[in-house]
Amino acid sequence: MTRVGVWLIGARGSVATTAVLGALAVRSGAAGRTGCVTERPEFAPARLPEIGDLVFGGHDVSEVRLGKSAERLARAGVLPAHLPRAFADELDRTEHGLRRGLDHASEGVRRRDVDRLEADLREFAEREALERVVVVDLSSTESRPGVRAEHTDPDALEAALDAGTARIPVSSAYAYAALRAGCPFVEFTPNTGPRLPALAPLVERSGVPWAGSDGKTGETLVKSVLAPMFAARALRVRSWSSVNLLGGGDGATLADPANAESKIASKARGLEHMLGHETDGPLHIDYVPDLGDAKTAWDHVSFEGFLGARMTLQFTWSGYDSALAAPLVLDLARLTARAHRRGRVGPLPELAFFFKDPAGTGEHGLAEQWRTLTSWCAAPEEEAE
Amino acid sequence: MTRVGVWLIGARGSVATTAVLGALAVRSGAAGRTGCVTERPEFAPARLPEIGDLVFGGHDVSEVRLGKSAERLARAGVLPAHLPRAFADELDRTEHGLRRGLDHASEGVRRRDVDRLEADLREFAEREALERVVVVDLSSTESRPGVRAEHTDPDALEAALDAGTARIPVSSAYAYAALRAGCPFVEFTPNTGPRLPALAPLVERSGVPWAGSDGKTGETLVKSVLAPMFAARALRVRSWSSVNLLGGGDGATLADPANAESKIASKARGLEHMLGHETDGPLHIDYVPDLGDAKTAWDHVSFEGFLGARMTLQFTWSGYDSALAAPLVLDLARLTARAHRRGRVGPLPELAFFFKDPAGTGEHGLAEQWRTLTSWCAAPEEEAE
Amino acid sequence: MTRVGVWLIGARGSVATTAVLGALAVRSGAAGRTGCVTERPEFAPARLPEIGDLVFGGHDVSEVRLGKSAERLARAGVLPAHLPRAFADELDRTEHGLRRGLDHASEGVRRRDVDRLEADLREFAEREALERVVVVDLSSTESRPGVRAEHTDPDALEAALDAGTARIPVSSAYAYAALRAGCPFVEFTPNTGPRLPALAPLVERSGVPWAGSDGKTGETLVKSVLAPMFAARALRVRSWSSVNLLGGGDGATLADPANAESKIASKARGLEHMLGHETDGPLHIDYVPDLGDAKTAWDHVSFEGFLGARMTLQFTWSGYDSALAAPLVLDLARLTARAHRRGRVGPLPELAFFFKDPAGTGEHGLAEQWRTLTSWCAAPEEEAE
Amino acid sequence: MTRVGVWLIGARGSVATTAVLGALAVRSGAAGRTGCVTERPEFAPARLPEIGDLVFGGHDVSEVRLGKSAERLARAGVLPAHLPRAFADELDRTEHGLRRGLDHASEGVRRRDVDRLEADLREFAEREALERVVVVDLSSTESRPGVRAEHTDPDALEAALDAGTARIPVSSAYAYAALRAGCPFVEFTPNTGPRLPALAPLVERSGVPWAGSDGKTGETLVKSVLAPMFAARALRVRSWSSVNLLGGGDGATLADPANAESKIASKARGLEHMLGHETDGPLHIDYVPDLGDAKTAWDHVSFEGFLGARMTLQFTWSGYDSALAAPLVLDLARLTARAHRRGRVGPLPELAFFFKDPAGTGEHGLAEQWRTLTSWCAAPEEEAE
Repeated sequence: MTRVGVWLIGARGSVATTAVLGALAVRSGAAGRTGCVTERPEFAPARLPEIGDLVFGGHDVSEVRLGKSAERLARAGVLPAHLPRAFADELDRTEHGLRRGLDHASEGVRRRDVDRLEADLREFAEREALERVVVVDLSSTESRPGVRAEHTDPDALEAALDAGTARIPVSSAYAYAALRAGCPFVEFTPNTGPRLPALAPLVERSGVPWAGSDGKTGETLVKSVLAPMFAARALRVRSWSSVNLLGGGDGATLADPANAESKIASKARGLEHMLGHETDGPLHIDYVPDLGDAKTAWDHVSFEGFLGARMTLQFTWSGYDSALAAPLVLDLARLTARAHRRGRVGPLPELAFFFKDPAGTGEHGLAEQWRTLTSWCAAPEEEAE
Repeated sequence: MTRVGVWLIGARGSVATTAVLGALAVRSGAAGRTGCVTERPEFAPARLPEIGDLVFGGHDVSEVRLGKSAERLARAGVLPAHLPRAFADELDRTEHGLRRGLDHASEGVRRRDVDRLEADLREFAEREALERVVVVDLSSTESRPGVRAEHTDPDALEAALDAGTARIPVSSAYAYAALRAGCPFVEFTPNTGPRLPALAPLVERSGVPWAGSDGKTGETLVKSVLAPMFAARALRVRSWSSVNLLGGGDGATLADPANAESKIASKARGLEHMLGHETDGPLHIDYVPDLGDAKTAWDHVSFEGFLGARMTLQFTWSGYDSALAAPLVLDLARLTARAHRRGRVGPLPELAFFFKDPAGTGEHGLAEQWRTLTSWCAAPEEEAE
Repeated sequence: MTRVGVWLIGARGSVATTAVLGALAVRSGAAGRTGCVTERPEFAPARLPEIGDLVFGGHDVSEVRLGKSAERLARAGVLPAHLPRAFADELDRTEHGLRRGLDHASEGVRRRDVDRLEADLREFAEREALERVVVVDLSSTESRPGVRAEHTDPDALEAALDAGTARIPVSSAYAYAALRAGCPFVEFTPNTGPRLPALAPLVERSGVPWAGSDGKTGETLVKSVLAPMFAARALRVRSWSSVNLLGGGDGATLADPANAESKIASKARGLEHMLGHETDGPLHIDYVPDLGDAKTAWDHVSFEGFLGARMTLQFTWSGYDSALAAPLVLDLARLTARAHRRGRVGPLPELAFFFKDPAGTGEHGLAEQWRTLTSWCAAPEEEAE
Repeated sequence: MTRVGVWLIGARGSVATTAVLGALAVRSGAAGRTGCVTERPEFAPARLPEIGDLVFGGHDVSEVRLGKSAERLARAGVLPAHLPRAFADELDRTEHGLRRGLDHASEGVRRRDVDRLEADLREFAEREALERVVVVDLSSTESRPGVRAEHTDPDALEAALDAGTARIPVSSAYAYAALRAGCPFVEFTPNTGPRLPALAPLVERSGVPWAGSDGKTGETLVKSVLAPMFAARALRVRSWSSVNLLGGGDGATLADPANAESKIASKARGLEHMLGHETDGPLHIDYVPDLGDAKTAWDHVSFEGFLGARMTLQFTWSGYDSALAAPLVLDLARLTARAHRRGRVGPLPELAFFFKDPAGTGEHGLAEQWRTLTSWCAAPEEEAE
């Protein structure tokens, strides 16, 4: 049996907790596979690692134990009330394998920081006898980095790490460590991660694939089918206004406009592409603590039809971020493991289906992304990539 | 220059008026092509007849003149206020070519009725020197016919027409006349039209294509992208409730539950197919006269995600039926004319993109329908069909 | 200490269970008083019985025990997960005091049926040493009764009971028993209950007050502030369309159109009164089992402003029926007990605030009802009524 | 016949144009009185000046003529298409009486500026032989003034006007001129106007009443009935999120955050007061040019019921700002004229019904405001105020 490691950055957060507990529940038959895209029949030919064969580890700076985090989610109605207790022992075992994450180092990332992260990954693979380890970034949204030499110049990056002054995004420090450890990487947040230009040669050298970025879990998902609908019908979208009310941990992070900026940019990028023209209207992300783990989005689309007729479409999406994101984490771990097995290197545009800001492609329409994804998964194993 | 005839059944109604006036305005440059699908670049290879080359005629039982109908729509804000006056002469010329339609004959359709309809079509083609005439049914929704021998047995149909007792849907009487006149047919309503089983041999004999049925102009259009989205994401839709508030002429017709039945059946059919499973929830069509030419639909979707999390999506669509349907009438006339030119016979599944209840295919997802449509239009002319 | 009995018809249903468990939790300090209108400062002068002094009993035909019912509601997220267990013993004690209700007797209600119900009430009052017992009808919605002599003629009613052929609504049989036992009555459902004309002399004779009918818990509550707003602003409401999606037990009952009829009539009655004119638009009540204990309503209001400008207001209300209704049951029990103490007889228009179809008044606007209610509660005890 | 002057600041804007044209149309019988609050029967005892007796003048810095402005509104569907032409002559006559407004003077308001404004008002009253002139501020939203001596100290204000360095809001310069001319004032915008503390003695001295501020025309109107509903039902509002999409001229002004600030503050102030506690949630005002004269607001209210049950209410309001505001301008002119006639001086809390940020009272609930307003209007004329 091939066991595949899934190393979660932000391993004690809501999404990670739901993914870990969900995988345990699915393996034992205590829960179904609703929301797991790769359990659809289209993915049967892809010979993906089974959900039950995934082994979890991870980094976090929070000290709230995984079991506590699960209980909180159950109280909030995101998880069934009985699940955390039913899998308390397994959660504890995973908890023991978690390691201390990297703090936002104001003075800069040091060589020994990334060495330690890399060592954690290698130790996990060895301890659990894993065929491979996929690293998935689930950490909080970072503020956008200012431009510095070590962001674009690989040599400058190495020198800055040696000097302990590397002002790189923490997500990119994790990506650096993963690449050094030979681990494929999934950037599930809007953070920079492996997109840092200075990491490009390291990606090539380490020969691993990566996927990203910013998991498409709610309002943007709906946009990614509605915008192509307007385009196919030759209806002219005049304004598209979006409001996102978030209560969870990420909402709190996004309350800082500096952090929200990269998320908003990531959300906005695709709309114009799908419509084929610019459009008007605000895009808000608001932190509303009262909402807890729920998020609610309202979109108002004003469009024009034949002979200038003015019409509107509104939608309201109300969901639980963790319930939406967690199964995608499992999907992405399985799919990225497959890409690694098949020798793929660099960004994986085939996985655009899962992301607001897909790496390696400009395609944002869900239907087209779905076709690309399922075609890739239908390709027989022996085929060269 | 090849002139193509478009013969509208219900030629003085809101949709027909908007289509005729819109085509005049587009031809003259007084209006843009927003909402005209076949003006998108994907359709350039298809060498469709130009909008400006379409010549309009039609049947109607209403006696409100086309120009009056246009003025009413302008007052209601569906058409720009100045258009009806600007094209008053051209509307009058089209008006002169309209012919008296077929009343709902309670005692049955007679041979001489269908002969007269057929003669009207032949006279139109000759008078206007048309290459071909596409008949488009835009008449009101009929009640569903009870089962009778002349619906399934071609000989029984001929006998009943001779006897003057053919209890067939009026839409099918029009289809019969069109087939006899060698005209391709578009069933834009949920009516039976060319679907009457007894017409099948006549379709073959006349060698014409037909498309249908029930133009997908609003709420169902949105459904046809949202339902595949839920399916692709493996999210389980638990209930999908729909409410349609209609104010226009068709709304009045649908106030009679007998007439609404076929419309509701047509709308419901696709959802289950797209989701891959049955679902719960009502589907209402309500006549609210106050709304005039506008229609508003509200849909409430309750769905389940990973580990049973309960979430919802709601949308409200507010549009003008005529503004949405009219450009599709032009699109369908052009595309069906092309199919006729290429020798196609029988239902045209390639045009499923335009219909709630597509003939010749079970595909209801918009993205897949779009791909089929554009592939067909990319096929070079010389290709055999 | 004065203990007041609350006798619930439908005592094992969702609303009753929530009311009983909620009162226990409030008394013990395990829960707050959110949603309890009579806990607002305006009610301090009224010297209402304390929530902690209410003692519960009741009839039901269901055999699902109160504790089980509470656990189901907790799993559905309507009640906090820990509450049913925390008050399991108290729920059991209440359960022991419940009595078998009256089945819908197709052949007619018999004298011994109402005698037995009356005896249950007297036995409860005695056993628990209660100052008074308020009977609250929380049973399912009944179909509207056809007209019969025993509905209007008190003598015919007595005769039919003697003969065992009284085709009266079951709710009216309960009201009859309550009146005979000298208990004030709250008709919380749209059922007939004490409104049966043949009961009027008995109301006078027994000298008790009653309140009703049809608790205003959601969409109608919102209507009762929005409609007066439009009226005060002289805006003309052209159509008001309402859709109610219900999943709970009452939803199932209402799936039978015969039962829905009285509910719909009750909801519609007030709108016209508040607007001051007739209006257009459908009112749907749909049973959507998937929604469980939740209910969602969508209202679409089309209105006209100055110089004919057309505008709209839409709202969506999503709530839990039990959580909304249960505190009102406590409020009504307390307020009706006070009316009884003060010697009031017959319908209580002062309690219109709580009802869709208020008895004894035509006032449907919430603000005006609030003013009436709080004025009444500010009146000093010694005042004659 | 008593003719009452209405002097509009911003006389060529959308609201003013709609008010002037609407009054002409109502007077002639060409339009109804929908939206005119003071035409309701409750106001009959108040002996208000008739709409037909209002005479319009005003200031503006725009040079788009009133007739042009009306035509633009008709094209946008806010006014009936035929109205501007039907009243072209009367609009022209009003246009001739308009005067050049006061520019935002960066270096400060000068004595001669306010003198000129005052002279315009006196000249208008004399020319038109008016009993009195009510000045209504309909100008764009200003940015909030920084604190300066001339804002609070009347003497400093006089000195700064003499020196030509008075850095006061333009709205307050208009109020100053109105007070000097003995004209009552209506502050229909969120601007400072007569609220400038330094104007208080002048208000007393001139002996005129004033009303304000910030007309309650849409989303806040709905809030002012929903918030009291939650309070009366003892439901705890946890968050109230509001999004306002505006396309019109005021939207453009509000695109500057400095200007939006006072509007947002004005909108937010009342909510907490009505609920009786603080609440969470953003309040956005966005400029979406595409929307033209329409505005759409979405509110999302998350609230808690009995035993902590979490529920939501959402609403979407879509209206035309001008159609909503214009009849209120007529109402306020009539009511303020009456207050003036009755010798009232200073702020008019009785008119709180019309304002987001009512002067002279903390009452924000619409029902209570309505009661106060109608009581005042029921008071017989001879009564001392």
